Amino acid sequence: MARVSQAHLDARRRQILDGAALCFARNGFHATSVQDVLKETGLSAGAVYRYFSGKEELIGAIVGEVLDVLRETYEAAAVETPPPLPDVLISRALERLREVRPGGLEGGQWVFSRLLVQVWTEVLRNDELAVQVRAGYDAVRVAWGRVVGSYRSAGLIAQEADADAMARVMIALAQGYTAQLAVIEEMHDRILQEGLRALMSMRDPRAGG
Amino acid sequence: MARVSQAHLDARRRQILDGAALCFARNGFHATSVQDVLKETGLSAGAVYRYFSGKEELIGAIVGEVLDVLRETYEAAAVETPPPLPDVLISRALERLREVRPGGLEGGQWVFSRLLVQVWTEVLRNDELAVQVRAGYDAVRVAWGRVVGSYRSAGLIAQEADADAMARVMIALAQGYTAQLAVIEEMHDRILQEGLRALMSMRDPRAGG
Repeated sequence: MARVSQAHLDARRRQILDGAALCFARNGFHATSVQDVLKETGLSAGAVYRYFSGKEELIGAIVGEVLDVLRETYEAAAVETPPPLPDVLISRALERLREVRPGGLEGGQWVFSRLLVQVWTEVLRNDELAVQVRAGYDAVRVAWGRVVGSYRSAGLIAQEADADAMARVMIALAQGYTAQLAVIEEMHDRILQEGLRALMSMRDPRAGG
Repeated sequence: MARVSQAHLDARRRQILDGAALCFARNGFHATSVQDVLKETGLSAGAVYRYFSGKEELIGAIVGEVLDVLRETYEAAAVETPPPLPDVLISRALERLREVRPGGLEGGQWVFSRLLVQVWTEVLRNDELAVQVRAGYDAVRVAWGRVVGSYRSAGLIAQEADADAMARVMIALAQGYTAQLAVIEEMHDRILQEGLRALMSMRDPRAGG
């Protein structure tokens, strides 16, 4: 077998994952076969099976990559001084996802949001995927919790704020925004930023400050 | 045909919708048949078809009911003085949904969140449902926008805040929270409230206030 560079292996792996993600986003997991992925990528079965044992492994790899990008983005943010504010950070995470998943573009639209919504439905039936998603979510939640800790240290939020609850709310916001992108309409991240800034501008009369 | 009271008709309709919602939440739309709904409710085909023409109409009625509950909750909130704060209002909307959909409980867990996540996936393939969901979302968004307008009038948020963007962010938050309930774990609404309060406590250094 000819020796191939790591860069070539990585590019091939990327090509397969992007093709698979596009197929899944379009038609869902159940209606997509490895055959469809071959057709989309123009690769042979041998080329694909060299990297992935089948559909389940492709789904797992795509989901794992998303969760890793999010975790890394929030871990990096937690050690920045000053920490990036929520609107900046969520937009950055979405931006990073779009960079890592460029293949998720079709007709100018970022179809990746369609894939994520379908992952949530798939989790309800696929126990192995559920375990992976929950573990990945916990890691992202811990990383976001560190960012919130940094907000607290910097005096940007109330000292008594519940860091874990805020982390979960920030993740919920990103998830819900993704659902809107997929289900309602493609929209500019500016909406998310402006909406978050409005919410952060709120003066809570109960806080007595 | 015997004359029956409106209360009886309403109760029967409720029973069918709750049974159908439970079936859909458990097994998804495609794997659920009207036969499953008959089995779940213990009703005859004649009794069910008197109210609904079939599965599609059941899905539409369930989704329509959810969207109506949300819209009515936010419309009522917009005319309260002072307007309920976001953490109070989102919890109230969830509470209202749980009251209207009591049949969505199974083993003590509110399975309704599982159904909502599956609705989003279904929207990607079902154009009629997509039109309904988008129109319902727009109505909820307008109602939430009025609440934000009331926050502004009461001096609770920045005067330059983008009301529509904040409405969309608030809806995203509720959607993402629902996704977490379905996909990650059942959790108490207190998490959502505490997280939102932490976010609202944020002092935005760019706002210069």
